[in-house]
Amino acid sequence: MINVGIFGASGYTGLETIKILRKHPQVKLIFATSESGAGQNLRDIYPISWDMPLVAAADAPLNKVQAVFCCLPHGASMSTVAAARQESACVIDLSADFRLTDAAVYEKWYQVPHAEPDLLAEAVYGLSEVNRADIGAANLVANPGCYPTSILLALYPLLQRKLLDLTMPIIADSKSGVSGAGRKATLKSHFVEANENLSPYSIGQSHRHVAEMAETINRLGGVGEKLIFSPHLVPISRGMLSTIYVTLNKDMTAEQIQKLFQQTYADKPMVKILPLGQLATIAHTQNSHLAVISITAVTPRQLILCSSIDNLGKGAAGQAVQNFNLMFGVNESEGLI
Amino acid sequence: MINVGIFGASGYTGLETIKILRKHPQVKLIFATSESGAGQNLRDIYPISWDMPLVAAADAPLNKVQAVFCCLPHGASMSTVAAARQESACVIDLSADFRLTDAAVYEKWYQVPHAEPDLLAEAVYGLSEVNRADIGAANLVANPGCYPTSILLALYPLLQRKLLDLTMPIIADSKSGVSGAGRKATLKSHFVEANENLSPYSIGQSHRHVAEMAETINRLGGVGEKLIFSPHLVPISRGMLSTIYVTLNKDMTAEQIQKLFQQTYADKPMVKILPLGQLATIAHTQNSHLAVISITAVTPRQLILCSSIDNLGKGAAGQAVQNFNLMFGVNESEGLI
Amino acid sequence: MINVGIFGASGYTGLETIKILRKHPQVKLIFATSESGAGQNLRDIYPISWDMPLVAAADAPLNKVQAVFCCLPHGASMSTVAAARQESACVIDLSADFRLTDAAVYEKWYQVPHAEPDLLAEAVYGLSEVNRADIGAANLVANPGCYPTSILLALYPLLQRKLLDLTMPIIADSKSGVSGAGRKATLKSHFVEANENLSPYSIGQSHRHVAEMAETINRLGGVGEKLIFSPHLVPISRGMLSTIYVTLNKDMTAEQIQKLFQQTYADKPMVKILPLGQLATIAHTQNSHLAVISITAVTPRQLILCSSIDNLGKGAAGQAVQNFNLMFGVNESEGLI
Amino acid sequence: MINVGIFGASGYTGLETIKILRKHPQVKLIFATSESGAGQNLRDIYPISWDMPLVAAADAPLNKVQAVFCCLPHGASMSTVAAARQESACVIDLSADFRLTDAAVYEKWYQVPHAEPDLLAEAVYGLSEVNRADIGAANLVANPGCYPTSILLALYPLLQRKLLDLTMPIIADSKSGVSGAGRKATLKSHFVEANENLSPYSIGQSHRHVAEMAETINRLGGVGEKLIFSPHLVPISRGMLSTIYVTLNKDMTAEQIQKLFQQTYADKPMVKILPLGQLATIAHTQNSHLAVISITAVTPRQLILCSSIDNLGKGAAGQAVQNFNLMFGVNESEGLI
Repeated sequence: MINVGIFGASGYTGLETIKILRKHPQVKLIFATSESGAGQNLRDIYPISWDMPLVAAADAPLNKVQAVFCCLPHGASMSTVAAARQESACVIDLSADFRLTDAAVYEKWYQVPHAEPDLLAEAVYGLSEVNRADIGAANLVANPGCYPTSILLALYPLLQRKLLDLTMPIIADSKSGVSGAGRKATLKSHFVEANENLSPYSIGQSHRHVAEMAETINRLGGVGEKLIFSPHLVPISRGMLSTIYVTLNKDMTAEQIQKLFQQTYADKPMVKILPLGQLATIAHTQNSHLAVISITAVTPRQLILCSSIDNLGKGAAGQAVQNFNLMFGVNESEGLI
Repeated sequence: MINVGIFGASGYTGLETIKILRKHPQVKLIFATSESGAGQNLRDIYPISWDMPLVAAADAPLNKVQAVFCCLPHGASMSTVAAARQESACVIDLSADFRLTDAAVYEKWYQVPHAEPDLLAEAVYGLSEVNRADIGAANLVANPGCYPTSILLALYPLLQRKLLDLTMPIIADSKSGVSGAGRKATLKSHFVEANENLSPYSIGQSHRHVAEMAETINRLGGVGEKLIFSPHLVPISRGMLSTIYVTLNKDMTAEQIQKLFQQTYADKPMVKILPLGQLATIAHTQNSHLAVISITAVTPRQLILCSSIDNLGKGAAGQAVQNFNLMFGVNESEGLI
Repeated sequence: MINVGIFGASGYTGLETIKILRKHPQVKLIFATSESGAGQNLRDIYPISWDMPLVAAADAPLNKVQAVFCCLPHGASMSTVAAARQESACVIDLSADFRLTDAAVYEKWYQVPHAEPDLLAEAVYGLSEVNRADIGAANLVANPGCYPTSILLALYPLLQRKLLDLTMPIIADSKSGVSGAGRKATLKSHFVEANENLSPYSIGQSHRHVAEMAETINRLGGVGEKLIFSPHLVPISRGMLSTIYVTLNKDMTAEQIQKLFQQTYADKPMVKILPLGQLATIAHTQNSHLAVISITAVTPRQLILCSSIDNLGKGAAGQAVQNFNLMFGVNESEGLI
Repeated sequence: MINVGIFGASGYTGLETIKILRKHPQVKLIFATSESGAGQNLRDIYPISWDMPLVAAADAPLNKVQAVFCCLPHGASMSTVAAARQESACVIDLSADFRLTDAAVYEKWYQVPHAEPDLLAEAVYGLSEVNRADIGAANLVANPGCYPTSILLALYPLLQRKLLDLTMPIIADSKSGVSGAGRKATLKSHFVEANENLSPYSIGQSHRHVAEMAETINRLGGVGEKLIFSPHLVPISRGMLSTIYVTLNKDMTAEQIQKLFQQTYADKPMVKILPLGQLATIAHTQNSHLAVISITAVTPRQLILCSSIDNLGKGAAGQAVQNFNLMFGVNESEGLI
């Protein structure tokens, strides 16, 4: 059994991580922290029927765990991650704090200086299927954002084989359920404002996830600056669909592309490629930890990729546990399927 | 034209009141106040396409209006109402501040002392169909709560004719859309908490509206203490259905009861009685200012009344304008149908 | 391993049953039938990512299974159940066909003659917590309806101890998600008709589940005829809440009643009693196989019980598997928690 | 008063058209047809509180009306339109039957031969703001599809001024509420299938509206074949948002583009351009007859246009009445604002 602790148990990603880990056959949950809920039980905060005492982060027995999941907001996460690393715990950080390699870029997008720039070099970007080997060897994994996960997994087979026309925009039109915005009560997440509505926000190149995606696209040989990304809030609790428009640098048939995607993900249990003619929907992955991708060839050069994940599953807690499994040599899909 | 002002324009009931009044052929809107939005336009706050400048309450030209609608929260409303009365403006107050006749009862339920107890005697409870004559003569109308409107309109024909078994409970199981809880961002109104959920709250005799309903039931010859009231939050933006279980003091047929309800509401344009066999649903009144009631006879003594209103329509702004029409001798349904 | 077959795999209860059983450690799924989907795979019909071939019922190898779950519509189920019993398979029937003990009563409510009246005597009503011993010994279990499950589990501790005032109505106001109406496309289940709406239907004593509940209430010493039952359709996919109003035959404190409920369900893993002051909501059980009940004492005689289940979980597939576990001597909550 | 008749009153667009026309000060509604509802009243079919008798189409007194709105499904509409024209009634046809100028193209996309090819030349495409003069002179207006309306209104100011890079794709990612699919009960519109889901369908260049849009784009000097169109079904009852990605043929600032859009729509009461920095959402137009468009400049060449309409408002009934107003010399926005 691997002893595990959770920081930030009272948010949606924290709750989801705990839900997975309490049934994970190789995990023993040692502690779960919540500042607002310290001294209470998780079931005082959520309508659940099982037991999970909450402690303040300061009281978390870091020396008793081999791994921690850090489900704190960005900015708040870095110091906790550093403390855990100090105690030699492996860390899966679900915040944005260690996703960008450059502290200056982080500060530009997140408006706060990075307090632990030395740790950035140690961090591996936890896009499980893309960085599997590095994740297996890592002590600190920066779990990707939900939008980047849905978009990068769809682009990866094309980037990997240098099939994108690098002069053309990559357009990702994404739709996310409201839990992606967290549990903080805001006007944006007010039921009456979100229900029966659908609203774009931070579209173009202004959303923070653009930086994270551009970095990986560039690393894989694409042109990150060509990415246009438009997130939309949709009136569902959880789930995410990205509709992605790309241009190839040579003519290909739908069957060729389909085959190539299947090859890339053949031995990856958490990514499924739909048969040609089927389109990925949010229902394909809701309440699961999978990514499901469909391919539509509009012309021999023009593709539409639909990529579905649950923003709390493969987009957060599910991928975090998948990375944990890779880090500890456990079967990749343990606890997830 | 009647010059009108609105206090509290940025809440849902304020917005709804303005939506009605800007198309009301006898009304000229002189001002709309919002503390948080003062200096802005209503369309900076809501996704609307028309113009409505917002001023601070302190800057509202009370001397230029004949009537004000007060859409402030309870507690905050009383002093504004008093100021408006001071300037001889007629007032329709949508808060709870003038609904109870006794300042001590108000303090018990609302946990604040009543700052304007002298005005209580002047206030008429604005259940339009029940107190029509008094409303017509009133200068200050206390607009009823949404739950009381839906329940009392259904009980009225039976109370009026002394047909209820006074020893038996009156059970009102009510379901309300989330806008009933106001626009303040809270965990309860968070999309992810309310969506795909349905939750009872303050059930039994603990909700504040119990006091308001008991008072009217007693005034009409019933036993207010027999009321059991269970509100539930349902995942819709607006609308309300009360399912009401009552016992008669003599055997009656469904046809007899139906006829009696039709008689009571024959000349009341804002209340509709469904034919026997049809059941009132939230869709019957959503986005309207009507109440729709259906009658189901379970046994010769046991009735189920389903009463549907839009909580922002007949349950708030619609009834407020209906009362305004009655106060100013305008056709009762002007601007509402 | 116990070999199991499913009839009616393409409906919502069939799908849910398969979802549980494919992860159940003691079960081997041998076949799943669907007339409309025969020759296809379940993932051609639902957005799922796993494999389940569908066969016509006529091709189901009944001789290879020890148990079958029958997820067919009422009326269609009886002959399949008889065929399975002929082959000595144990049967959990999720339809209404074997819930009523009297073939004449069945015909009255379901408008078709019962084709297998001899099997009625063999059938045990599968309300797991109430009939546990009989279920353990049964070869044919009639899985209860979703509404009866939510209501009877809440009444059971009071009926068992003869605490109800038998002269007073038992009022159950129930709210159900749309999946309770099945997957057949109808106007009632059309998104635009159900969304932003809430509609009562078959209220009073006209819904078929009244007969089923009355029978169990009478068997437990209550007066089934006193039940008034009002189902409402609410705009959620799955989940059910019953708000139940009962009168005691003696004064009791909330604490006494609470204690009594806890005693009744102390050793029942699938039923949870909330602490006093908390109210059961649909979120408490959604996507689970639990029932969660809360108690509110309005007066020393007047109680409100809120009872939450997932209509597809404890209200159908979850209870079916629970009954299967009891029938085969497996841990009651295996595969369910 | 203009005497008007409605064919196809029992569908969503028929209902919406009647809702507008019964309050339209210059309209007298003479008849409303429904084959399934003939002999009934519209309020037997919908939860409404007003009166509208339904007749069979064969019994519609065509000789008594000056205009008819044809709200029948495509294919079924053409013969009714021809009959109405025969009686000299002006026709606003909300189906697709007269939108394409070429009968062969119609047959290709709609899989049925066009029964009234001679009438095609007479029909004017009713995109009110684009074809205003022609509509004013027309006797037969083909009301545009909802998707084309939302997309073409956003492209029009750029097409009109030849500002699009004609070599680059025009990508329209559209999201529609479920009422767009009509009132027929199908699995796609089943609440449980659509709720908490979001699904792309007919993406690329395979949706029928592609033909209609390409024709208008070509007519306005663009390259219709460059259009890539991806409709998505979203879990709301009504409303539509198109997020449109276009490339300019020269560098422009956001302010320049904004100004140009405002000029195009300055005297068009039913189209609103949002200030820079605001994004159009579905809430901006829901339950209205407006189109609301926002402009986001990603780079000096790359624009994102967000275009919001209510699919039943400006996307169907609202635009139909707007066209009717233009045809009869009535104020364009009469009955609509």
